[in-house]
Amino acid sequence: MDTEFALSCPLPITQHKTIVLGHGSGGRLTAQLVRDLFLPAFDNPALRKLDDQAVVEVGAERIALTTDSFVVTPLFFPGGDIGKLAVNGTVNDLAMSGARPLFLSAAFIMEEGLPLEELMRVTQSMAEAAAEAGVAIVTGDTKVVNRGSADKLFITTAGVGLVANGISVSVCNAKPGDVVIVSGTIGDHGMAVWATREGLEFEGAILSDTAPLNALVEAMLIAGEVRALRDPTRGGLGTSLCEIAAASSTGIEIDATAVPVREDVKAACETLGMDPLFVANEGKLVAMASESSAEAVLNAMRRMPHGKDARVIGRVVADHPGMVLLKTEIGGSRIIDLPFVEQLPRIC
Amino acid sequence: MDTEFALSCPLPITQHKTIVLGHGSGGRLTAQLVRDLFLPAFDNPALRKLDDQAVVEVGAERIALTTDSFVVTPLFFPGGDIGKLAVNGTVNDLAMSGARPLFLSAAFIMEEGLPLEELMRVTQSMAEAAAEAGVAIVTGDTKVVNRGSADKLFITTAGVGLVANGISVSVCNAKPGDVVIVSGTIGDHGMAVWATREGLEFEGAILSDTAPLNALVEAMLIAGEVRALRDPTRGGLGTSLCEIAAASSTGIEIDATAVPVREDVKAACETLGMDPLFVANEGKLVAMASESSAEAVLNAMRRMPHGKDARVIGRVVADHPGMVLLKTEIGGSRIIDLPFVEQLPRIC
Repeated sequence: MDTEFALSCPLPITQHKTIVLGHGSGGRLTAQLVRDLFLPAFDNPALRKLDDQAVVEVGAERIALTTDSFVVTPLFFPGGDIGKLAVNGTVNDLAMSGARPLFLSAAFIMEEGLPLEELMRVTQSMAEAAAEAGVAIVTGDTKVVNRGSADKLFITTAGVGLVANGISVSVCNAKPGDVVIVSGTIGDHGMAVWATREGLEFEGAILSDTAPLNALVEAMLIAGEVRALRDPTRGGLGTSLCEIAAASSTGIEIDATAVPVREDVKAACETLGMDPLFVANEGKLVAMASESSAEAVLNAMRRMPHGKDARVIGRVVADHPGMVLLKTEIGGSRIIDLPFVEQLPRIC
Repeated sequence: MDTEFALSCPLPITQHKTIVLGHGSGGRLTAQLVRDLFLPAFDNPALRKLDDQAVVEVGAERIALTTDSFVVTPLFFPGGDIGKLAVNGTVNDLAMSGARPLFLSAAFIMEEGLPLEELMRVTQSMAEAAAEAGVAIVTGDTKVVNRGSADKLFITTAGVGLVANGISVSVCNAKPGDVVIVSGTIGDHGMAVWATREGLEFEGAILSDTAPLNALVEAMLIAGEVRALRDPTRGGLGTSLCEIAAASSTGIEIDATAVPVREDVKAACETLGMDPLFVANEGKLVAMASESSAEAVLNAMRRMPHGKDARVIGRVVADHPGMVLLKTEIGGSRIIDLPFVEQLPRIC
């Protein structure tokens, strides 16, 4: 399931009688929904791992399967659009299992009245993104609903990838001593979409970072021992770290000063009262690499276009399992926890 | 792509400036959209076959990949609900390639305000359908959109299946002489949903036929030579036959009196001015079996719960390639052609 995990959710799902926006946040309410509703209904070993993708055996091969729906508004924003997001998002979810992404499906739910020209731009963008990532969109579906029953266009992509022999990357695999590496600045995507939507003055200055990360991951896997990977989309880096800590039953300590945030993103977050740690990214990853190979992994990342700003931001520790501590500039530390509510609805 | 093909669409897509309901009909406008927009953008050999699923090589295995979005309204109807439909629809699309369905993904787009109890019923129903079909739902996604931006709940399922060695089933493979077999009565699903939606008096009497067809297909493949399979969902049996005739460049002749339609479905269709040939099914298939093995295939079908009413309804012929002729009761014949417009919007 996407950016969810089932731990540390004290309240039962029945606190709500209806779905609220927070259930789609990727935060605490989403985790509740998964724990109390989807997991009990669909329970199986692959789902239970709560990676962003399932790795399953099909005949003689291990394949990764993943899906995401995209409901971002507006459809077009600086640096990308819903189509590019849909392709890169699924490519990245596959890559985060160490799989080589191969084939995608794409299902379109369109609102009556959607301008054909917009649909054409989106499909063209998907085709370009697929070409860049080296995947083929091999099957699809189109549905149209009457005006007012959807908001323009929703796209759901699913993808399959091949997991090579010997590869074992999972959010369950982080170990004390592992080095935490982030591939670049955080919060760009969320702020780009938010600024466009709200017509804020920094609109256009901040570009979405949407990008395919499979080539980056391939280089990392060759360079060293990468144990856990996550692309911190909805919910942001903070949520991904919490998920890895919980899934691996380890603690994580992050150096706040080391986390790269663009100055304009930082300023935008301050204006809106948001923490960049919980703002969505669409072209970044966080990795847990073994201590002995971390430098090699980092160097390999920096040689790749989507990893050139990669930095070490912290450590996996044996203390406080399941908990993420942020060491702040002034020498203190605070616990990073999942947000309860939807910070930025419909960001992806 | 689902129930679309790119032939015999005289008008270019640019006749419309925006998406209309007919673009989701599975008929002529959907075919135009695929031919003029999706195919040029995403072009690749697997997509070009225009089966309801792609069969691709992943490592040493051939796997089938498919996806469908479900936007049916109402969410619950006699004989099923959106969840059962979403699981069976994807299972069946996989089965129609001769694949053994194995793993499904499920992505939920929920409208703020959706009663949690309804979501629970739907997921429970999906779990039961998955268990019946012998597949596991191994990964998923949840998105929430604000009130008014979607109609309660849309579900997109994708699935992977394994295609055994030697299996080659495709809508491109029908050959003159093949026998056309339908697995049971047609039009049940469409009329069940329509009646519920409109509060018509035969509501409740007609049940959706939604069912997993993978066990039926497995029995058929063991019994004889099955060349082409299609589950006539949106667009109905008529559309599926047109698609097979076009994809295989053969003619098809159907005996109108042989096509099984329940009396109440026939009556409902007459009331609404609809042709059961173009009304959706969700638990039926149409097969082209080699002449020599057709009887064995038919007998195997009749031994299975979802094939007990299987009947021969016609022949694949060398004449009039791409064209489907319906021989009527009074000895005449008429050409079956794709409907231009959406007969029953949001039927699946």
